[in-house]
Formats: sequence, structure tokens, C-alpha cells
Amino acid sequence: MNIEIINIGDELLLGQVVNTNATFMSKELINYGFNVSHIVAIADDKKEIEDALLLSLKRSDGVIITGGLGPTKDDITKETLARVLNIPLVEDVETLQMVRDYFNKRGLPLTDTNRQQALLPKDCIVIKNNYGTAAGMCISTSEKKLIISLPGVPFEMKAMFPEVISLLKTHYKTGIILQKTLLIAGIGESFLSDMIADFEDNLPQEIKLAYLPNAGTIRLRLTAKGNDEQELKDTFESNLALLLEKVKDYFIGFEQNISAILFKHFTDNNQTLATAESCTGGNIAHLITLNTGASSIYKGGIVAYSNEVKERVLNVKTNTLKHFGAVSEQVVIEMVQGVCKLLHTDYAIATTGIAGPTGGSEEKPVGTIWIAVCDKAGNTKTKKCFIPTTRDNFIERASNEAILLLLSFLHYKL
Amino acid sequence: MNIEIINIGDELLLGQVVNTNATFMSKELINYGFNVSHIVAIADDKKEIEDALLLSLKRSDGVIITGGLGPTKDDITKETLARVLNIPLVEDVETLQMVRDYFNKRGLPLTDTNRQQALLPKDCIVIKNNYGTAAGMCISTSEKKLIISLPGVPFEMKAMFPEVISLLKTHYKTGIILQKTLLIAGIGESFLSDMIADFEDNLPQEIKLAYLPNAGTIRLRLTAKGNDEQELKDTFESNLALLLEKVKDYFIGFEQNISAILFKHFTDNNQTLATAESCTGGNIAHLITLNTGASSIYKGGIVAYSNEVKERVLNVKTNTLKHFGAVSEQVVIEMVQGVCKLLHTDYAIATTGIAGPTGGSEEKPVGTIWIAVCDKAGNTKTKKCFIPTTRDNFIERASNEAILLLLSFLHYKL
Repeated sequence: MNIEIINIGDELLLGQVVNTNATFMSKELINYGFNVSHIVAIADDKKEIEDALLLSLKRSDGVIITGGLGPTKDDITKETLARVLNIPLVEDVETLQMVRDYFNKRGLPLTDTNRQQALLPKDCIVIKNNYGTAAGMCISTSEKKLIISLPGVPFEMKAMFPEVISLLKTHYKTGIILQKTLLIAGIGESFLSDMIADFEDNLPQEIKLAYLPNAGTIRLRLTAKGNDEQELKDTFESNLALLLEKVKDYFIGFEQNISAILFKHFTDNNQTLATAESCTGGNIAHLITLNTGASSIYKGGIVAYSNEVKERVLNVKTNTLKHFGAVSEQVVIEMVQGVCKLLHTDYAIATTGIAGPTGGSEEKPVGTIWIAVCDKAGNTKTKKCFIPTTRDNFIERASNEAILLLLSFLHYKL
Repeated sequence: MNIEIINIGDELLLGQVVNTNATFMSKELINYGFNVSHIVAIADDKKEIEDALLLSLKRSDGVIITGGLGPTKDDITKETLARVLNIPLVEDVETLQMVRDYFNKRGLPLTDTNRQQALLPKDCIVIKNNYGTAAGMCISTSEKKLIISLPGVPFEMKAMFPEVISLLKTHYKTGIILQKTLLIAGIGESFLSDMIADFEDNLPQEIKLAYLPNAGTIRLRLTAKGNDEQELKDTFESNLALLLEKVKDYFIGFEQNISAILFKHFTDNNQTLATAESCTGGNIAHLITLNTGASSIYKGGIVAYSNEVKERVLNVKTNTLKHFGAVSEQVVIEMVQGVCKLLHTDYAIATTGIAGPTGGSEEKPVGTIWIAVCDKAGNTKTKKCFIPTTRDNFIERASNEAILLLLSFLHYKL
């Protein structure tokens, strides 16, 4: 069952907004056995919307549209849909009441502009929006293809998506999809590919393997599609076992990212963690605390951006800073041991480096970073990396390197 | 000049990777006067690549493709391009040398798989990849449309993009684009729209206005496209002045996001900042340190995830925690004042709340957050918000609310 996603919004084509809506929707659709065939971003333009809609109805089994449902003049999706499908817009009583309530609650008047939010294609299924004034709508075409239109505000769209899935599941009969992602570290993509070439060559047609390299790690995704659940499961499991055997020296877990693997390790072992970050500026803390339940393993951290904080909060010695400079093995060791002691945790991570684009020197160019991990007994492991890239990419990759160093420290000791 | 972007990769359709490549490319293209007409994400599939390529050549003036150039079996872009355009693949001597050097430097052998990376369409313009083994290529069709193919790894693609721009600029004659984005806070989208309805109605055809709401703020983007630079500039400037006058009560700056506005304010005023984060888990620190030169204004912060850290590092009183609970106005006040004193800064921000999905109670449900800001004299401002959403969205919006509170605190005093 091929679903096409159309994201409407000039902001997507102007590079002002990252299309996270498409990512969220795809992930959800796949989980429920739908295939996403195309993701298309187009402008707030009548002709473009019309063309994209007609093309999607030709090549796909259904289409989900986001964006262009707001109250402002650049929001033209609803009118365009109604015109293309030749359905009049009528005021929906229940939606009008929701819009009225929305403004009432906020002590604001119901303006004419806002009242128009209750105009919806006649006889469509209304998808309620509990967080905004733009209702979603679901229309079935004469060829029994569903067209679903949702607001583009991620938070509102996400809250409405369970109903979208339920509408799709009622309307279409879906196949079965099995999927597993293996996180791999410590080997380059081409060498991994050579290592498992035999395995890939012998994969049955219903199973696909994909490589997703990301900042020092590779996600290997095995996907199976079919109709007979038991048969598919058997084939999938046996191939998964084969793959796991092949990559066992580099396999670090089934989670989607290394922060989730780290979180799981700490949770399983009932251990606690602290961070001391200079150049990664709180991003390691952020990655760890994105995990639900992080408070059970993560006590906290120090973002030690200035030397003053390194000294006063983390007890890095003035002499060490003076002698070796802030970006040095000596300083990162004092940082990691300092935070581990300060926050009374079982383990700690620390980083210090030059994210750039300014601040580099000949001896320590932009992209230089020292990372360290330690346990409460004082056992410490350090690593120097050189990541000459953009500031945001440096922060991302440096954070990953630090988490990987802790994982290798833990595995070494396991 | 309409350029179409085609991003190839199963991972995009499976929702495993956010398409940040398209955002980066669009932003760059717009800056150089190109219009991005479509962004299309498709699977690593011969037929899909072929269809997308042919469609884009029909409706656009040029196409940039990312992905599918790696050494593994799921990388089929190059072969598909060569077949569709009927051009043979030949070994490129210079690329082969670069691939060889790449592995030499790493002490790794040049395998057959990697050697294939040097096979490129005959007579194409090679775009060097200094960070990986997949070269880019640029082909001009018989209709003088450019097809540019780049690797999908963001870091590699970005480094190659200046040459892409230079190739495009040599090949096409572009129009002029002027653009300005106004960051607006403190007013809802529909009320803003009503407020500037006259302005919008009277906009000349060459100027467009777009609304981009994001977590408590709205970006208003004014774009002008034309050919006569001076004429376009005059029209654009006069309309921009009109718009600024209309929204002056809610206008907070021209930067792309509030963290950049905060950073600019602190830099301009030579002031320093500290953060104390519980539920936002380091994300505010991360947002601030994404700004180049952050170290001149940001001394550091405490991620006080556990009560123990709140007490021992930030000097929050045990009694306050016991009496009011960690998520309370009293605690957030002690946190913000604690960190401001500890790190000797001019200002500080603090957050404490329940990101969820677990940890809520009837009295303090998931989504509850207290934020506070203060200056070194002890003047403090607090705010309670309720943001019932997903964990990652909560963190994003709560961080924005905290930065907005500090901005309002600063404006109040200016």
C-alpha cells in the first residue's frame, strides 16, 4: 500500500524549516505496514498543489498532505483541494464550536478570519485538532483513494496522527513489515560492505539491507516485506541471526542511536552518570536527557565553557590550565574526575576542544578535541580527535565520539 | 531559474533520517538567486530514480541529486544516471588517486569495491570530495539542463556545495532575490494576520509574505524576486519599513531564532550568562553554544537533573525541595539565583519541570514547567508554563520559553 506525502510550504523550499513532519509521518506509517513511496515538498502555490495532488493520485494508493491550513492569506490548501476535487466548502458546526472555544479560553474574540477555519469540504471526515484551529480532513476519491490533509505545525499534526493511522487501517489492507536496525561502530562503510558481501548476495528478494552512516557509526537496517506473517518471520529471523554473526565484532546494539544504547546500559546496570562539557556545550547532556526516564541514571552535568567554571566548579587546577591550555589531555582528565567526584556518580564523560570557526591555533587547529571518561575508582580513558567541519556538525560528532569512548570503556570492563 | 532537489535514500522514506540536506541546499540556492521548485525524496530503486529524474528534467531547469553514491550494493544512483542518459562509466584517473590516497592515509588497502568509486560518467565534470570516496558529478543534457549528483553524507555534500554553486552560476543566468525575516513573539498567528491584512492586500506582485510559526514565535518572511536590482531594492525596502511599523510592538529582531537574538544582545552589551537546567537537560546551553563566539558571553551552566545536584551545586535548600517539590516557583528561583552567584554572571536562566511521558501527578501533570531569569543584583522574574506534548517537543518549546522570558526581562529593563 503506497502512501505519498506532500508537504506544502514555501519555508521548506527556502531552507528555513527542516522537514521533520515527513520523518515523523514516514516512521509512523511504516510501523503500521504502509509503504511511503514519495515525499514531495512544494510551495504554497495553487498550480503546484494541484499538480502534485493529481500526480500522487495517479501513482500512489493514498496521499497525506501537510500545511497551508492556517488562517492567513498564504494558506490555500483547503481551497485548492476543494476546487480540484469539485467539492464545496461548508461551515462545520462542530469545528466552529472548537474554534470558538479555542479563542474563548484565551479571552480572545472570534474574528471573521478565524471563523473561516470552520469551512471544510462537504462530507469530509473531520480530524479534530485539539491544539490549534486548523482541523484535518479526510476525503475518499471516486477511485477509493484517501486524501488526508493536516496542519503543518508539527505539534498539532503529531497529535492528530493516531486518528490518521486509524482511518488508513480501516480503509486499506496492509502487508506485513519486519524491521531491525543494528548499530555498528569501529569499521568504515566499505569494509563493512566487503565483510558482509556474501550475506548480501544471498538475501532473499523480500529482504533488503541498507547502510546509514552517521558521525562515526553505521546503522544497518534489515527490512522484510510480505504477506504471510509466520513465513516472513522465519526468513527474517534466520537472516538476522546470520548478519549478527557476521558483524559481531562491531555490533553495539539494536537501539537507534548510541545515546539510547548508553542509557540502556546504565539502566540495566543501575549505574549513574555525570557530564562535564566544554566545546560540546551541553549537547551530550541533551542527548542523554532525550531518553525517557533519564533521571534514573543521569544526575547532571557541568557546562564548563569558561576556564573560570572549569576551575571553580570542576576543580581543574589553575596551573594545569596555564601549562597545557584548556584543550589538553591534562585538563580533560581533571574535568572528568572533577565532575565524577562533585556529582558522586559511577561514571563521567568530559570534553574540551575548539568547535570553531574561530579560536584555533597552529598547534591546536579548529576541530581539535580531547575527550575523557572515568569511573568512580578513578580509572580514566582519554582520546584525542580531529574533526574539522562546521560548528554544529563538530558538536554533533564530538558528542558521539565521547559517548562511544564511554561505551568502549564499559565494554572493555564488562 | 527552477532547480529541483532529489534526495535518494530508503532511510528518508522510512523516517530514520531527517532530510537536513534539502534544507541546507535550498538555503544556499536561494541565497544565490535560484528558485527551488520541488524537493523529492525517493527510495534507492532504479525505477524510482529514473522516473524522478525524467520528471525533473521535464518541469525544472536543473536538478541536484543526493545519495546512492557510496560503495555498497544499495548505492545505485551512478549506474542509473549513466543508463538513463546513455553515457558509459569510465575510470577517472584523478578520482582513483584520491580514493587511493584516502585509504593510504588510513593505512587501509584499496579493495575492488573501493576502486569502483572512481568509475564516473564519461566526460562529466568531477566535483572533488575531500572528505570521502564518493566524487560528485555534473552533466549537461542536450537541452542544456544541468544534472548534479552528490553524496548523501551531509558533511561531504556541504563541503562540495560551493563548487556546485559556482557551476550553476556559470551555467545559468539568475534573477535577483531579496529576503528578510522578522522574528515576532507575543501574538498569535491569526491576530498578527488580521493586524497586517491591509499591508498584505497592498503588496506588489513581486513581493511575498510568509508566516512560519515555531514554538511560541512567528517568523515573518518578506521575499522579493525580480531582475532590476535598484528597482527591486527600493520596493523591498519601502515595504519592509511599512511592515516593521505595523508589527513594532511584537518585533524582536532579524535573526533566524531567539537564541541568536539573545546572543547578539549579550555580545552588544558585553554581558555574561549562565544556565541552570533541570527538565531542559542542557538544551538551552546547547542552543546558546551553537552561536559562533558563544564563549565571549556564556560562562557555563549546571544541568541539575537530580535534586542532589540542585542542592549541592546550586545551593537549593533541602527544605525548599521538601516543602514545594522540585517543580516549583520557589525551587526555580533558588536555582537561577544559585547559578548566577556560582558562575559570577550578569544574568542567568533556570528551568525545572516534567518533560514526561512519565513522572507527572494530578497536581503537577506532565508538561508543567517553571522557568526563572535573574540579574546579578537579584532581580528575578518567573513564569509557569504548561506544555503537554512529546518529550523532545517539550524540551524544545520549554527552552524557547525560557529564552523568551529572559528577552522580555531584558527589554523591560532597557
